[in-house]
Order: sequence, then structure tokens, then C-alpha cells
Amino acid sequence: MAEKVDLNCDMGESFGAWKMGDDENVLRHISSANVACGFHGGDPRIMGRTVELAKTYGVAVGAHPGFPDLVGFGRRNMDVTPEEARTDVLYQIGALAGFCRRFELPLQHVKPHGQLNNLAMHDRRLADAIVAGIADFSPDLLIVAYGGELARAAEARGMRVAYEAFADREYNPDGTLVSRRLPGAVITDPDRVVERAVRMVQDGAITAVDGSRLDFPIHTLCVHGDTPGAAGLVERLRRAFAEAQIQIVPMAEILS
Amino acid sequence: MAEKVDLNCDMGESFGAWKMGDDENVLRHISSANVACGFHGGDPRIMGRTVELAKTYGVAVGAHPGFPDLVGFGRRNMDVTPEEARTDVLYQIGALAGFCRRFELPLQHVKPHGQLNNLAMHDRRLADAIVAGIADFSPDLLIVAYGGELARAAEARGMRVAYEAFADREYNPDGTLVSRRLPGAVITDPDRVVERAVRMVQDGAITAVDGSRLDFPIHTLCVHGDTPGAAGLVERLRRAFAEAQIQIVPMAEILS
Amino acid sequence: MAEKVDLNCDMGESFGAWKMGDDENVLRHISSANVACGFHGGDPRIMGRTVELAKTYGVAVGAHPGFPDLVGFGRRNMDVTPEEARTDVLYQIGALAGFCRRFELPLQHVKPHGQLNNLAMHDRRLADAIVAGIADFSPDLLIVAYGGELARAAEARGMRVAYEAFADREYNPDGTLVSRRLPGAVITDPDRVVERAVRMVQDGAITAVDGSRLDFPIHTLCVHGDTPGAAGLVERLRRAFAEAQIQIVPMAEILS
Amino acid sequence: MAEKVDLNCDMGESFGAWKMGDDENVLRHISSANVACGFHGGDPRIMGRTVELAKTYGVAVGAHPGFPDLVGFGRRNMDVTPEEARTDVLYQIGALAGFCRRFELPLQHVKPHGQLNNLAMHDRRLADAIVAGIADFSPDLLIVAYGGELARAAEARGMRVAYEAFADREYNPDGTLVSRRLPGAVITDPDRVVERAVRMVQDGAITAVDGSRLDFPIHTLCVHGDTPGAAGLVERLRRAFAEAQIQIVPMAEILS
Repeated sequence: MAEKVDLNCDMGESFGAWKMGDDENVLRHISSANVACGFHGGDPRIMGRTVELAKTYGVAVGAHPGFPDLVGFGRRNMDVTPEEARTDVLYQIGALAGFCRRFELPLQHVKPHGQLNNLAMHDRRLADAIVAGIADFSPDLLIVAYGGELARAAEARGMRVAYEAFADREYNPDGTLVSRRLPGAVITDPDRVVERAVRMVQDGAITAVDGSRLDFPIHTLCVHGDTPGAAGLVERLRRAFAEAQIQIVPMAEILS
Repeated sequence: MAEKVDLNCDMGESFGAWKMGDDENVLRHISSANVACGFHGGDPRIMGRTVELAKTYGVAVGAHPGFPDLVGFGRRNMDVTPEEARTDVLYQIGALAGFCRRFELPLQHVKPHGQLNNLAMHDRRLADAIVAGIADFSPDLLIVAYGGELARAAEARGMRVAYEAFADREYNPDGTLVSRRLPGAVITDPDRVVERAVRMVQDGAITAVDGSRLDFPIHTLCVHGDTPGAAGLVERLRRAFAEAQIQIVPMAEILS
Repeated sequence: MAEKVDLNCDMGESFGAWKMGDDENVLRHISSANVACGFHGGDPRIMGRTVELAKTYGVAVGAHPGFPDLVGFGRRNMDVTPEEARTDVLYQIGALAGFCRRFELPLQHVKPHGQLNNLAMHDRRLADAIVAGIADFSPDLLIVAYGGELARAAEARGMRVAYEAFADREYNPDGTLVSRRLPGAVITDPDRVVERAVRMVQDGAITAVDGSRLDFPIHTLCVHGDTPGAAGLVERLRRAFAEAQIQIVPMAEILS
Repeated sequence: MAEKVDLNCDMGESFGAWKMGDDENVLRHISSANVACGFHGGDPRIMGRTVELAKTYGVAVGAHPGFPDLVGFGRRNMDVTPEEARTDVLYQIGALAGFCRRFELPLQHVKPHGQLNNLAMHDRRLADAIVAGIADFSPDLLIVAYGGELARAAEARGMRVAYEAFADREYNPDGTLVSRRLPGAVITDPDRVVERAVRMVQDGAITAVDGSRLDFPIHTLCVHGDTPGAAGLVERLRRAFAEAQIQIVPMAEILS
């Protein structure tokens, strides 16, 4: 059986007159786009253009809801109530779904942004609230998570999780990410990132920082689009996967 | 044949800690709610609660999109491009539709708010853009208009218009509203408003300020919810319609 | 020597079309107004009108800066960096100071709002940042605090603290407020609030919930303006102080 | 007498995580910075850093207030009332002045941004409101204008106008700018822009598109910082002025 993996990347995070990311060049090479919904980035024009571009390049679309903190880009902890998280998530998914209707593209998945995502790894109450907001829209949406409480909350509710791995991050033996504050936590050498990405998919496992093997389903690899050279890295990933006879397909095709 | 009319009212225009309107008491008596979508008023919590309350009271729900001007409550002209109007409208409809999904209520109609609505009476380009944004979501949505370019744009696109009349406003012989700046333009005596409302529906016509008859389809009467005593007036309207054997039903039932 | 105390109250917390508080009626009876600066409430029109009204009633004006969280009214924890706190505070003070220049009124004090204030009681790093932002504007501004790290940070920097007490709150023996979640923490009987307020000033001390005496300088009493009947309570306070021959004067007069 | 001219450029128009302009490299060559104040661009961190950088490079600082339209970058007409314009301008000037206090730099001037500026060229009521907001802060601030109602309103109030010219724009014989929509309206050849800039200052006049001479005081030349290569152009301007023995100095030095 030919191996498959999804490549997901945050998209549409420009705002008004301000540009962020090299969206169009990255979209040529990925299979799933996490589209910002206006709370931490993105605006209705950018959302529409991003969905349209995704359609042009055959990329599946998901919502990327964040905290209501534009000036902080959704990267600051906010102590929201479960009802605030649930309704903020639902609002943003609904708004993006409008653009999916305009361009006749299904909404495939939801991946929370920034600190909303990070907090949901460890806070079950918040994770439950996010999952509830997603289920309010549709229990058929895929939820992207790299484990933690968000994955557990989704599964407890009977929703499907698209497990995500990071080729450019080191893992602790317990499956959590090595803190960015520690030296070597982020792998910056593109050769190593590409080689690691291919091996992760071939092995169906991640090698932790101590050499131990983490058996972890890998449905989708996260690509960071806001770093310089992102488009180049994604292109190399695509070529390396082709050589390894690994197909890049939207996560819905892997989880179906 | 029993006569029917819809009563529509703007709802959910509170924001965060700030309250506006006597929503629950008005909802007991109307048949269609125009729910603010977060740009001029409303926030995700309020949108959720408003849709839930509408369901409780058997009231149909529509979107009430406005200009992105919270501090100006959507009441200031903004020189938006057609693409800005179209995408702002689609974003807001989509966001509200998320809450309709949560509470399993169909989205019935769209009525633009404030200056977005007023400008669309006279500006065909803007009206076309608003209608495009509504059609992007669904060509089956009803569009509430009291005539003008918005109604023409909707009909040119083959969409259904719910024609709206104002029992508390005087009309010019050409069917436009007498400017609020002119004395007597707004009828403040509740007895006269109620009597006028019933007559409008019975006659299927409006009496203009010069006594002439305006033949004008009347599907829905607009009730202003942000004035003190709004709930009392709406209750009286409901009773007067009952006495006149006019049924109050959601506009979708009238236009079907 | 005639005793003196300041009465401070949050003011100008309306926003755009939304009204909050009975500002004008409260202003007739207090001596210091904490004016919202647009981040959690208030807008440039409301700031101008509030400063003008304060001048009319001879009330001293201070800035009431909050977290940049309009929909949450500044009542949610946000994990801001010290530089973010410092610059957000400075921005808001500067903006309000513009209106003080327009109406030729000095800026007397700063009192942080909501969670920005609550967190600064226990977080010295945040408290230092807030104090730095205030000092950036002027080291002569008074800082209102009911103790904690904010008071300590201000004094460490050589700035003057206007110590605040709450007549409607019970105190723990260590000088902290009894949590609102505990029964009886908030005193709702107006007679008891008024009597307690007068006694606090006469004693120069607060009686804790266990009957022990807290020796605590009291320069200003906080009045809550957003509760129904606030204006009535403030009027009663003023009368009770008059009877007890305690003068109500701006905090600057007490601390000079 | 040695000739002098000021070079002004919009600065600090980044927002949160989004960057705009090559501020530091442009600041090395100009003499006055128009600093965005948070309504159309800029945030408290960026305002602080921009004022600090301006101080480092010996550049004078002015406020660059805009319409409250972040997503539209202040480039859309908004139908604000005179009181809204006046208070929005005062709020923004005050906020920036806070950062001037922090870095001990005087506030030199005000130049309205985008459509607020453009509308004020032709709308005397709006121009009067803007000037009133500036005078509310201080009647000693310089007002940058290229003529029109804004200059007339400032002079009618006894305030000093720093007249501005555009080396990269063609002028009509009546002194207005040739519309950007017309071919050739914007001069893109850097050689011609530099040569034209020097000649304008030497002649103390502008050559209109028909060859006629516009006698027009020129205190400051506007440089556009958001175009690619802005820093390079500004550096060339500086060198050309040095060769022509024209000193580049802040506008306050020219108008004093």
C-alpha cells in the first residue's frame, strides 16, 4: 500500500494592508490549509482569497480559530470561560464556512491557533469547550491535534482526530515537544527537517530526543509558513516525499 | 383567507458588558429576529443566546450585518468597495449561521443594518454587492428591503424580497420615507402606530403623507426594539392584530 | 483637625451607543473620577464628556487604564509582557491627558482597571511595569492601590500611593479582601456600608472579618458606580460624612 | 543664506505581528517622522520604539492620526461628525505625546493620515474639527498641509502651517495634485524625483504639469516610506540636497 501523509500549513494570516507569509507559493505544495478567521489574523477579503487560492491548488480547507487578540496575534494566554471559547470558536468556523460555500469547497478540519491551541493541550475544560464549539458546527469536522487534552476531548466526544507531527521540533520521551526555550528544540537545518519528515511517515513513529521510539499515529505534518524560505522548504518536502513514494493528500483522505 | 403579517425587530445588539434593548420581552411578541453579527453590535455569546431565545419563543432568525464600525454602531457612512461589502456581509452571515446550526434553527433572512442598509437603497453597486454576499451563502435566503436599489438588486438576481413597512414612519408620495429631520416624520403616539399597522396590512397599502395610496406589498412590519417601551408597543401590536384576525407569522411563511 | 477623605468612582465606561453607569448623578457626590481610556470601555467622545462633567462638578480626574479587551471589559486575565503592560498604560494615560488639556484640568491619579489591577496586587513584575508606564508619563501622578505589589512597586520607585479602602467589602485579617465567592464577602446593606465607611475614616483603620483591627492608611474610598442605586448610595455617603464632619476632597489634597 | 528643507515620512505603521515599512533605514535620512497612533496602524509598542528610534537619529516627531479603521488602514472615507473628528484626533495626539514624554522628545507637529487628510483638503467643517482637536492639545503644534481647507482652517485659528510638497507627484495649474488615476500623475523615476525635489527647494516654487510656476511655500517634502526602495530614495535625496548645499532640518527650525 502506498503511504500517504497530509501537509498542513497556517494560511491567510495577513490583515488589511499588512501582509504575512508567502501563501500562494506555499499552497502549491501542501494539501491542507488552516485558514485564519479574523480574530488573531485574517479579514473577510483575505479569507475569501485564501479559500479561492486553496481551491485553485487543490488544497483542502480548515478553520484556524484563535483568541480575540489581534494586536497580540493570538499568542497571549487569555483566561476565557468555556462558553467564551466555545462561542468564539463556533463564530470563527461559521464565518470561514461562508467563504467555503462561496467557492463550493467543503470545510475539512479545525486547528486552533497559537495559545488557544497550546492551552488546550493541558487544560481539559478548555479542550472540551473548543471541541463543543467545533461539534456545534458539525460533528463530522476533523480536529487537528498533536495529542494532549484536545485529542482526548475530541475522542471522548466521538470526533475524529487528525494527529499532527512536527518534523522541525524535537520530542520528549513522553511525546510532548521539547520547550522552544531549550537549545536544539527547533531543528533549523532544512536537510534534517526533510529527512526526518520522510522517516516519520515511513516509520509511523517519531524518534524522541533520547533516541526512544514514540508510536504515534501521524496523519498530518505541520509546516510553518511564516518563516523566510517556507515555500522553498515545502517544495523540498514535496519532492522528497515523491522520491520516497509517499503521496501527499488532504487529511480527510487519510482518515476516511 | 386569513391575513398574515410578519413582525421583525433588530435583536442581539448588546456587546460584551453593555446591554441594549429588552430582547427577551420583545421576542415574546414578534415573528422574525434580525440578529446582529458582531460588526456593529453583538458578540459570540450574545449571538448564541439570542438564537437560543428566538428558538424558545418560536421566532425565525435572520442575519443583521453592518459596517465594521463598533464605536459608531454601524450608523456612519463608510466608503467600502463592492468586494468589501460582499465579503463583510458573507462573513457575518456565516458567523451567525454557525449559531443557527448549534441550536438547529434555519437561517431565514438577511436585513442589512444602519447605514449599510440606508446606502443600499440608493446605491445600486453597493446593493448588488450586498446581494452577492447573501447569495454566496445561499440564494434561498430572503432579503428584507423596503424598496429601492436593494430590492431591485435582489430581484435582478432572482432572489426573494420580503417587503418591509414602517408603521411609525410617514411616507412620501413616491414611496420613500419622510426624512427624520422633518417634523412629524416619526409617529410617536402608540395608538396611531398600532392603528396604522393594522390598516396597512388590511389595505395591503400605505397611506402617504399627502393622503395618496401607495400600493406596496407588505410582508413584514419593522418594530424598533431599542426605544423605551418597545416591548409594550409590540405586545399591543400583537393584540390588535389578533382582534383584527391577522396572524403574525415568520416572513418565510408569507413568501412561500 | 477636620478629617478628610476622597471618594473615587470609575467613570466614562460607556462605549459608542452603549451606556453604562449613572455618571452624572454619581459625579455630583464624589471627589475623584477614574476615567476609562478606550481599551476596556470609554471612547474619545465619552472621555471628553466625562472630563468636562468632572470639571463642572469640581471632581478631580484620573486615568483608569485596562487590558486591551473590549468584549471582555478588561475583566479577563491576559498574559501580557511587562513591556506590553507599560506601553498600554502609557498610551491610555496620554490619551486621557489630551482631554484634560482640552478642559484645562490637571491629571491627578492613575488607577488600573479590572484584572490589570487585580493581577498587579500579586505580580510584582506586572506591578513594576504598570508603575513604569505611569512614571513615563509623570512621576508626580498618584497611584491608587489597596496595598499589595502595586503599592510596593510604586513606593519602591518613590511615587506616592493613594491607599484605597472598600466600605462594601469584608477584609481578611491579613488585609486582603475576602473572596467574592464566599458568602457575606460583599456588604449589600446600604446602612451598613455607610456606617462602615464613616467608621473607617474616623478610626483610620479597617475592622477585619474576625474583628481584628487593620491599621491601614485610608486616603480614598472606592464607590462602585455600575450597580443600580449607585447614585443614591453615594449621596447618602456624602451626607453621612457631612454629619460626621469629614470633608470629601480629592486625594491630591489629602496626600499633599 | 543657506537653504533649508524638512523631509517628512510616515513612520510606525506596523501593527502587532505585522511589519510595514523600512522605518529604521528611512529614519537615518529624514528630519521629521509622522508617527501612526494606533487607529489606522501602529500600536503602543511600535509607537514607543518609533519615538525612541527617532530620538536616536535626531528626527523630530509628529502625530499621524487617522480614521478608526484598522482593517481599511484609514484609507476609506468615513462620515464622521466634527466632534468625532476632533476627539479622535485629540485622543491620538495625546497617546503619542505620552511616548514623547517617556523619551523626552517634544511633539513637533501633526499630519492627518490617509482619507482623514484627503477629505480635510476640501471639507472646511472637517478641517476646522481637526484643527480644533490639535489646538485642544496645544496651539503651538505645527500642522502639515499641502494647502486646501486644512491650511486655511489652521491659519484662521492662528496656528502655523508647515507647507508640504510632493516631489513624486505632478501638480495641476491650480495647485492641486493631478489625480493618481491619470497616467503620469505619480513620478516613479528616482532620478527625476530627486532632481525635482532639489529644484523645488531652490526655486521656492513648483512647476505644474503645464509648465506654469506655482508660488507655494515649501517647508517640508513628503517622502513615501511604504514603497520598496524607499530607504534608497531617501538616501539619494539626502545626498543631492547636501551637494546643492540645502540643509535638511526639522520643520520647526524652518518655521521658527
